[in-house]
Amino acid sequence: MAKTRLSRNRPRTTPLARAKPRVTLIDYNVSAFTEREVANPAECLPYRQADSVTWINVDGIGHPQLIHELAQVMGFHALTVEDMLNTDQRPKAEDYGEYIYVVAKMLDLNPHGEITIEQLSLVIGSNYVISIQEDPSDPFEPVRDRIRHAAGRIRAMGSDYLATRLLGVLVDRAFAVTDRLGERIEELDDLVAGRERPEELRAMYQTKREIIYLRKAVTPLREVVAALWHTESALIHDSTVPYLRDLYDHVVQAAERVDTSRDLLSSVQDLYLTRVSNRTNTVMKIIAVFSSVFMPLTFITGIFGMNFEFMPLIPKPWGFAISALSMLAIVGAMLWYFRRKRWL
Amino acid sequence: MAKTRLSRNRPRTTPLARAKPRVTLIDYNVSAFTEREVANPAECLPYRQADSVTWINVDGIGHPQLIHELAQVMGFHALTVEDMLNTDQRPKAEDYGEYIYVVAKMLDLNPHGEITIEQLSLVIGSNYVISIQEDPSDPFEPVRDRIRHAAGRIRAMGSDYLATRLLGVLVDRAFAVTDRLGERIEELDDLVAGRERPEELRAMYQTKREIIYLRKAVTPLREVVAALWHTESALIHDSTVPYLRDLYDHVVQAAERVDTSRDLLSSVQDLYLTRVSNRTNTVMKIIAVFSSVFMPLTFITGIFGMNFEFMPLIPKPWGFAISALSMLAIVGAMLWYFRRKRWL
Amino acid sequence: MAKTRLSRNRPRTTPLARAKPRVTLIDYNVSAFTEREVANPAECLPYRQADSVTWINVDGIGHPQLIHELAQVMGFHALTVEDMLNTDQRPKAEDYGEYIYVVAKMLDLNPHGEITIEQLSLVIGSNYVISIQEDPSDPFEPVRDRIRHAAGRIRAMGSDYLATRLLGVLVDRAFAVTDRLGERIEELDDLVAGRERPEELRAMYQTKREIIYLRKAVTPLREVVAALWHTESALIHDSTVPYLRDLYDHVVQAAERVDTSRDLLSSVQDLYLTRVSNRTNTVMKIIAVFSSVFMPLTFITGIFGMNFEFMPLIPKPWGFAISALSMLAIVGAMLWYFRRKRWL
Amino acid sequence: MAKTRLSRNRPRTTPLARAKPRVTLIDYNVSAFTEREVANPAECLPYRQADSVTWINVDGIGHPQLIHELAQVMGFHALTVEDMLNTDQRPKAEDYGEYIYVVAKMLDLNPHGEITIEQLSLVIGSNYVISIQEDPSDPFEPVRDRIRHAAGRIRAMGSDYLATRLLGVLVDRAFAVTDRLGERIEELDDLVAGRERPEELRAMYQTKREIIYLRKAVTPLREVVAALWHTESALIHDSTVPYLRDLYDHVVQAAERVDTSRDLLSSVQDLYLTRVSNRTNTVMKIIAVFSSVFMPLTFITGIFGMNFEFMPLIPKPWGFAISALSMLAIVGAMLWYFRRKRWL
Amino acid sequence: MAKTRLSRNRPRTTPLARAKPRVTLIDYNVSAFTEREVANPAECLPYRQADSVTWINVDGIGHPQLIHELAQVMGFHALTVEDMLNTDQRPKAEDYGEYIYVVAKMLDLNPHGEITIEQLSLVIGSNYVISIQEDPSDPFEPVRDRIRHAAGRIRAMGSDYLATRLLGVLVDRAFAVTDRLGERIEELDDLVAGRERPEELRAMYQTKREIIYLRKAVTPLREVVAALWHTESALIHDSTVPYLRDLYDHVVQAAERVDTSRDLLSSVQDLYLTRVSNRTNTVMKIIAVFSSVFMPLTFITGIFGMNFEFMPLIPKPWGFAISALSMLAIVGAMLWYFRRKRWL
Repeated sequence: MAKTRLSRNRPRTTPLARAKPRVTLIDYNVSAFTEREVANPAECLPYRQADSVTWINVDGIGHPQLIHELAQVMGFHALTVEDMLNTDQRPKAEDYGEYIYVVAKMLDLNPHGEITIEQLSLVIGSNYVISIQEDPSDPFEPVRDRIRHAAGRIRAMGSDYLATRLLGVLVDRAFAVTDRLGERIEELDDLVAGRERPEELRAMYQTKREIIYLRKAVTPLREVVAALWHTESALIHDSTVPYLRDLYDHVVQAAERVDTSRDLLSSVQDLYLTRVSNRTNTVMKIIAVFSSVFMPLTFITGIFGMNFEFMPLIPKPWGFAISALSMLAIVGAMLWYFRRKRWL
Repeated sequence: MAKTRLSRNRPRTTPLARAKPRVTLIDYNVSAFTEREVANPAECLPYRQADSVTWINVDGIGHPQLIHELAQVMGFHALTVEDMLNTDQRPKAEDYGEYIYVVAKMLDLNPHGEITIEQLSLVIGSNYVISIQEDPSDPFEPVRDRIRHAAGRIRAMGSDYLATRLLGVLVDRAFAVTDRLGERIEELDDLVAGRERPEELRAMYQTKREIIYLRKAVTPLREVVAALWHTESALIHDSTVPYLRDLYDHVVQAAERVDTSRDLLSSVQDLYLTRVSNRTNTVMKIIAVFSSVFMPLTFITGIFGMNFEFMPLIPKPWGFAISALSMLAIVGAMLWYFRRKRWL
Repeated sequence: MAKTRLSRNRPRTTPLARAKPRVTLIDYNVSAFTEREVANPAECLPYRQADSVTWINVDGIGHPQLIHELAQVMGFHALTVEDMLNTDQRPKAEDYGEYIYVVAKMLDLNPHGEITIEQLSLVIGSNYVISIQEDPSDPFEPVRDRIRHAAGRIRAMGSDYLATRLLGVLVDRAFAVTDRLGERIEELDDLVAGRERPEELRAMYQTKREIIYLRKAVTPLREVVAALWHTESALIHDSTVPYLRDLYDHVVQAAERVDTSRDLLSSVQDLYLTRVSNRTNTVMKIIAVFSSVFMPLTFITGIFGMNFEFMPLIPKPWGFAISALSMLAIVGAMLWYFRRKRWL
Repeated sequence: MAKTRLSRNRPRTTPLARAKPRVTLIDYNVSAFTEREVANPAECLPYRQADSVTWINVDGIGHPQLIHELAQVMGFHALTVEDMLNTDQRPKAEDYGEYIYVVAKMLDLNPHGEITIEQLSLVIGSNYVISIQEDPSDPFEPVRDRIRHAAGRIRAMGSDYLATRLLGVLVDRAFAVTDRLGERIEELDDLVAGRERPEELRAMYQTKREIIYLRKAVTPLREVVAALWHTESALIHDSTVPYLRDLYDHVVQAAERVDTSRDLLSSVQDLYLTRVSNRTNTVMKIIAVFSSVFMPLTFITGIFGMNFEFMPLIPKPWGFAISALSMLAIVGAMLWYFRRKRWL
Repeated sequence: MAKTRLSRNRPRTTPLARAKPRVTLIDYNVSAFTEREVANPAECLPYRQADSVTWINVDGIGHPQLIHELAQVMGFHALTVEDMLNTDQRPKAEDYGEYIYVVAKMLDLNPHGEITIEQLSLVIGSNYVISIQEDPSDPFEPVRDRIRHAAGRIRAMGSDYLATRLLGVLVDRAFAVTDRLGERIEELDDLVAGRERPEELRAMYQTKREIIYLRKAVTPLREVVAALWHTESALIHDSTVPYLRDLYDHVVQAAERVDTSRDLLSSVQDLYLTRVSNRTNTVMKIIAVFSSVFMPLTFITGIFGMNFEFMPLIPKPWGFAISALSMLAIVGAMLWYFRRKRWL
């Protein structure tokens, strides 16, 4: 995964990203509700000044032309459009007066359980929210359902509340990802406690790098939400502030969990390294025991294997017994020594 | 323990947590005092505007319904209730105008001497305090006794003082936990000084992870108490401020102790690793001594064990003596070398 | 490369730097446009107070005399000139009232793919920009083209916008460099995953040092651009502020990428070290297996190779078979032991 | 020492601490001077509002009753008394309006050259200073002498100057302790440069832990003195401010020295670990040289020690010479190889 | 050097320091200039209120009496004098109203190329500067020359400009020292790339400690110069502020270079440690190759060296050939294995 991350800043031309983005529009107020697909950005124009709240969602940024047209219809600054199309932005909130432009990173787990990072652009206007996702996977269905069924207070609140809700979905996903991360670290911990294998080592460093990217995605979100919370822009109403404070709490928690994961992983890594050192030590002791026991013994057999014509003990009947006893004495002495050293 | 921690954010359905929470109510002023159990949250309604101070304590959050009813009776914001039921909050103090909502982490030692972390929610109103504990173990009995016996100034002070007292109990518990932590590190230190064993290594990293969680529980409490101390809310009276300052001092001290534990543990860990390196070095020296002494000797015996028909020394009567002397010379030279190198 | 960096603060007398610097002048407003080479700094004097925007670019600082003359013509403070000629400045923005003096570091890749760091001095006056580059390689051609063809809004904006553009070119280059850095770290990662070689180790530390220098060049640029963005100087117009905010975003991103590179590299380094430890451990096990299998076997052959005249088994017909069986038993026992220890 | 520190927060019932504390009183102004022992705290009452400066010193806190009585006489807040009796406070300065309460840590060296940490409580009133020491060792005699002999300006200044002087004594002691620490690190450095021994390793980590405790005692003193210096309390006169600034300088210096000690010790520790690695490497080379020289030689002797009836060279007269020459060739080749590798 | 540093706070009684300090006085304004030696501090009195700028330089602080007399003549506070005589001050700037007292550390290289740290005290009055150096080596000759020959603007500016110039000399020296440091690290880098030797290891840690002391000397200078730059004291004129800003830039750069040196050195150190690990690994492989090739071979020779009367192969004519072939097969198998493992 680290590689995918590292190469993100280079142009991506995957077939998916190239597919024509799907644009959906939901318009609602306390009493009414419309939902439809938008084929031509110009259709959005009437909603720019409407009394209802309009949420335009773009799934995928593969067709820059479409984004450009939408931006023109909605009256965005050229820099906003540029940022929308550059998926390598860091999370930020920029107040352009008429609207607030928010960039955030959407974490997710793909079917293989790998962590993916996708960019979400939000434009919060006085009566609309535009959300632009990098890939056509859509996590906002629950929010849509709440709007459709007028669940909770969402239909009664403005566009700022809707944006807070969308960011809330994003933070909930981050929690799912940090939960998965926690599980993975537990698995690594169990693996390290058992027998070490090369794959586990690889997985450990893979996870470490994922955490580097997660931090980069989650930590700046703190300032983004804090900026929205404390903004003086009239686009954020007082009634939404408690929800932003709550969102802020969640973001801080998510960021702390990533940090905790990092600390835990680094502790697992330390344990791993210490175990390797300990194992090396144990292996050395085995070598030491065998060397110090058998080298002297083999030397003694060597002595009596020499072919001198005149040698002591050789012709004696108790010669072999004496050599055998001296060998036993050596074995005994070495074993006593190693036991005292507590190696055996 | 690390695992319990990591998995805390997942729903817990232990029988204990599921048990019907016990709700107790204490109502007091300088002269009067009532204490009773509450079966139905609606019974609390009269106390919401009473002149006396009311303390409602809920032991356990297994029945969300009960918390919801109590919140409705007392008029809490929906977000407050959500936070009360989510036991994965980080410590914080939030001013909702009519009341201050405080989340803190209650450290404790279970019967096995393991550290447990439980969430405590406090709601400080003008004339009431609501405390909601995660588990039905109750550490607040001493405070109740003080109220019952009108000990000290507690009966003469308001709800803010009561809340300070409850947080004080929590900080005292944190001290007990850090004391235990200190003892454990001393034990580890003694173990490391002796012979290393795999369990000790495991215990060392276990303790390291516990400290990661302790820090997360204790450190943010500092800002929580500072926020209460410096708040402009009318709910905190000037007469309580010195006690909050004192509480702040204690929290800072507890946080410093956790940090000191971390530093000490990391020093124990360094010592451990250095000892492993040193031991490996010692083992290597033993191997080196045996190899360098016996390899040349065995080589010499090998020479005179060759079966050439024409060989020097073999048929000589002093052949064996010469070989033995050369071996002794080698042993002497190696021992002199190792003594000079101070390995022996 | 590290060396080149370290010795940068010593006088450089490379032939290139000594070459006579090329001075080009571009003067433009919405309707008109002039471009020419300047032979004598005095020619710039008329442009100091002109209504149009003038951009004077100096390629190379090998002739201090020329810079001094230009400074006199344009009325720069003595300290500004000194800083222009000292290529060891750290990035900074200084408001001299009549002009703002900016020092930045221009990163680039030379034809060998090595990172080079060059100093860029910018003087932003009310109607002129003076850019002084350390070396005669010129990255500003695209900006010149935009001016020549009146592309975008550049011809309609003032000198502050031109300076923002020039700094933008510099930041874009920094992205190219961090991309290359990312690729290099990926290569290192692949190398480390494979067989280790001395060159790779060298490359790893080389890259580490490059990152030290990159950070020193990129990180302070953040404050420089922030200073321009938040300045109260009348030289920066409100219409340029969004572009400075955008530039700031880019600089922060570039700085974060350098930091990410550092974290990733340090993770690669950890992986490398762990692999070395692991390999040492594996090698030790091989030695241990061979020692513990063959030392006892050789000892047994030694016993029966002794020349005692009276020895057990030797004259028996089944002597060899017994010795062979006992050897097989030892091999079997050791292999069973190592399999249980999971070394085989 | 580390242990004593860790267990400090538990009640101490050493005989010394239990001894009846000695209370001395010094009352002075420019012209007059009285010194006497106080048997009953009530004797201090007249001095509470006197025109002269009164210094009451309590040596030891073994009798809480005495402290309580003194506090009642002088009119201290209950929290002040509690803090005085709890010897586990962290350094702080608290303004109670009528008096400022200061807690500081007094470092000292016991007769064994070990570092001890004792708590000092100072109460600075408008015309009195109360100093409460944890143990009955008294470092303030030099200050007393200055008062007795009216040396310097002390008799002409107020209680705030006296308190500054007492804190000055404490900081001077801290310097003595950091000097001793510096010497100890130099000793360790010399030891590490020589032959390593287990005791030295132990001493290194002992010192490391002492520094952890020293930092905890010295670093917060900085804020304490800064608080006194910048206080708006009328208890600190303008004429004392330069002395507080000077004291602040000294405290900062003491804190920096502790930090420098930490850096130096960590550098000694790195050196130690590197030396261990280097030694292991050297030992390995010795083993490698012996193995690679003697294993092939012994193999050759083994070949010609085989008992085949039909073997080449064995019956030849020049057989031994050939084997000896081939052995010499192997030795030569290996030595050449190791010399080229620069191991010899 | 590290030792000299550590023991600096103890009284130094070197003959040099004891020598009678040389006091020189330079008095100048735009038109006039006097230079002479001062035998008696009282001679300085007339200059205290003169219209011209007076620079009194004291080389050496061996005679405290002299400093005391000079301080009395110039009207310094007692604490200023104490700080002048204590050479263990940390850099600071203190505003005494009538004068500003500055302490800085003067870095230099002694003839042996070792770094020395000397204290410089500056007193900046409205019309005078007093500089007090610790040792009688005088780096200020170039400034004197500028005054003598009225070079640049120095004769036209006040005492604050003179002090800025003197601090500038000090910072230039710091650059010379960091340049030397950079060279030394390059040397170490080359050494580490080659064959390791004990001296180099020692030099590495020596340099590391020097950097600890350098940081302590250079880093706080930043705040000192910033304090002078931003001071509200009338002693610093507006015309000097640009020069202080420039000086500040230089100090920040010097401090950054020390930090860069630290990072580079730590990278050299990592490289060193990794190389040691790698070498150990290589040595282990050599041992493993020899053990695994020759242990089986020697075992085979051992088998056929046994003296059993009834043994297979021994009496066969092709016995030796079979044993030789089996040995070759073992060698081949092992070599193939090691080649596959890429050890050869």
